[in-house]
Amino acid sequence: MSAPSEHERLARVVLSCGVEPGDLTTSTLVRQEGAQGALEAQLVPRPGSGLSERLRVIDPLRQLDQASRCGIRFLVPGDPEWPAGLDDLDHGAEVQGLGGTPPGIWVKGPMPLTELAGSVAVVGSRSASTYGVEMTRAISECLALSGVPVVSGGAKGIDFVAHDATLVAGGATVAVLACGVDRVYPEQNRRLLAHLAAEFAVVSEQPPGSAPLRIRFLARNRLIAALTRGTVLVEAALRSGALNTVGWAEQLSRTVMCVPGPVTSYTSQGVHHWFRRGSSTLVTHGSEVLELVGAAGDHLVEEPRGEERPRDALSPADQRLLEWVPVSQPAGAVSIARLGQLHIRDAVPALRRLERAGFVREEVDGWRLAGAR
Amino acid sequence: MSAPSEHERLARVVLSCGVEPGDLTTSTLVRQEGAQGALEAQLVPRPGSGLSERLRVIDPLRQLDQASRCGIRFLVPGDPEWPAGLDDLDHGAEVQGLGGTPPGIWVKGPMPLTELAGSVAVVGSRSASTYGVEMTRAISECLALSGVPVVSGGAKGIDFVAHDATLVAGGATVAVLACGVDRVYPEQNRRLLAHLAAEFAVVSEQPPGSAPLRIRFLARNRLIAALTRGTVLVEAALRSGALNTVGWAEQLSRTVMCVPGPVTSYTSQGVHHWFRRGSSTLVTHGSEVLELVGAAGDHLVEEPRGEERPRDALSPADQRLLEWVPVSQPAGAVSIARLGQLHIRDAVPALRRLERAGFVREEVDGWRLAGAR
Repeated sequence: MSAPSEHERLARVVLSCGVEPGDLTTSTLVRQEGAQGALEAQLVPRPGSGLSERLRVIDPLRQLDQASRCGIRFLVPGDPEWPAGLDDLDHGAEVQGLGGTPPGIWVKGPMPLTELAGSVAVVGSRSASTYGVEMTRAISECLALSGVPVVSGGAKGIDFVAHDATLVAGGATVAVLACGVDRVYPEQNRRLLAHLAAEFAVVSEQPPGSAPLRIRFLARNRLIAALTRGTVLVEAALRSGALNTVGWAEQLSRTVMCVPGPVTSYTSQGVHHWFRRGSSTLVTHGSEVLELVGAAGDHLVEEPRGEERPRDALSPADQRLLEWVPVSQPAGAVSIARLGQLHIRDAVPALRRLERAGFVREEVDGWRLAGAR
Repeated sequence: MSAPSEHERLARVVLSCGVEPGDLTTSTLVRQEGAQGALEAQLVPRPGSGLSERLRVIDPLRQLDQASRCGIRFLVPGDPEWPAGLDDLDHGAEVQGLGGTPPGIWVKGPMPLTELAGSVAVVGSRSASTYGVEMTRAISECLALSGVPVVSGGAKGIDFVAHDATLVAGGATVAVLACGVDRVYPEQNRRLLAHLAAEFAVVSEQPPGSAPLRIRFLARNRLIAALTRGTVLVEAALRSGALNTVGWAEQLSRTVMCVPGPVTSYTSQGVHHWFRRGSSTLVTHGSEVLELVGAAGDHLVEEPRGEERPRDALSPADQRLLEWVPVSQPAGAVSIARLGQLHIRDAVPALRRLERAGFVREEVDGWRLAGAR
């Protein structure tokens, strides 16, 4: 995409400040006519709509100036820092009537958003369980240690823990908000959001000063999905907002990864329900997330293995003989040798070896396994 | 399949008593030559093998007579009660070098095995967790209440609970053993196995008197998979024997159903690992099991839904307006009306309605949502 003209950028500021996020009419107009054309079309007054009046009073230069004085930059498509993933929002993805690439995004913080190219979203319930917190910590830490940036919202619960654990592990993490990047919501995350804005980045398509509205959370979720390669859903009740985010990730053909949990846990029910719908992958460890979102061959998961069992250290012949020693009622060496197709001359020394190694026990009426099966 | 001749039946008794279960050479010979032909071939002495001698000393009439006096019957393919599912074992399925339809099965108990046609296996670790026990109970009870017979092994842990919960709910349940059906292993399940043998059925391909050997457990698992429409894996550590059973179910194109659990639980790790390999389905409730194994349309699962929220009871217009009320910092009625594209004359009464219903609150500087988001 070519560098945006100054007129185009200012038109995008006006649209960003005047139109609610996820408005498909506007994003379609922008795609077809460019931002200036879209703005002109929207400036035509329509009965029953106050949009043209709202747009008319916006002073884009003043908005940019105010933002800049607060350390907030406005990015539009074509800017070197514009995250390419957001352009995928213009290919028809739609959830609950919302969609489209935002006219621009407002960013506070030193981290260039181009670094989000290989990032992963970690999302889930505000009311997280201890288990959810533990899993979020483990996965975020693993991503951080592999240099994969984490993206999440600004809520308490899983969002908070995803950022916090990433920071503790020395990783990079970015919050995408439903309100302006200069605002704090919820209040208890004030310190976290300030830290992200100072050291990494806080992002919103809402202009500075905007309040958090429910519809803006829904629209915001599409940015979380679009900015990342994949979304990990750690915990979600059946109507959790996090399910909306994975809905976006699915629409955008991003990898959706679900962390299983106890069926009996309220906060895992939404995850299992989503998972059963179809197209996502079950993950139990950060390394599995890395394997799914990484470039091919980047992060290969080692097959999980049970602990080595003492049995594994035996010779193949002794292992084979051991198969024929009964678990409960003892059997004579002759009968064991016959089943194992071994001469009795070889079977007895082998049984003695197995006895010394603690596998079998000789009793009055024959041999049996030493440990209860 | 035509009714088996008496000679054929007796040859099968000899093979059942003399050949270890899952022996592919024998089952292949039986398939190609019939049981009499297979027996003749195996009676030829081979150097290093004691098989022909073992077979030679077996008196099949005496075996049948002894079994019958203990209330044990011997079923062979072609018998009206022969479970058709076992024939699927002759189509090349093989796990760890074992496989094949058994020459016959020994059954104790009044339940005709034809009733297993729509049955489900419920399997898992001997060392079950409280969670595993709870899930096994819930799923088995649901199957019992729907008239679906349960099949499992005779071990403690998940096997025991699957039988026990099915019995408590008034269902039918069958144990498939690795030892003879007249033997008890493990000892602590003596009462359960006696009850199953008296009221339902206990099944083994091992002749009466046979001891439980490790290799017989592996061979036994193929019967559990073959006798049922699908296998539910409730809990399994990474090296659990229950994974062998689902391996058989997969090879036999049965439905494999995995119950998710906490990633942090040792006894769910084998389940998740198996599940991530591919072809199984996640289940969280017995009704989902019924839907998967039932005849089409038999058991349709109701979509799980979150609780109805009070918001759902509002008129669509009021729900829409509610979207525009800020969650934290209050906003004036005029600004809310404008965002919601509503005339102020309609917006204020609507806000009052929402206030009376407890959704919004009026403060000095405007309106906000009543509950913290």
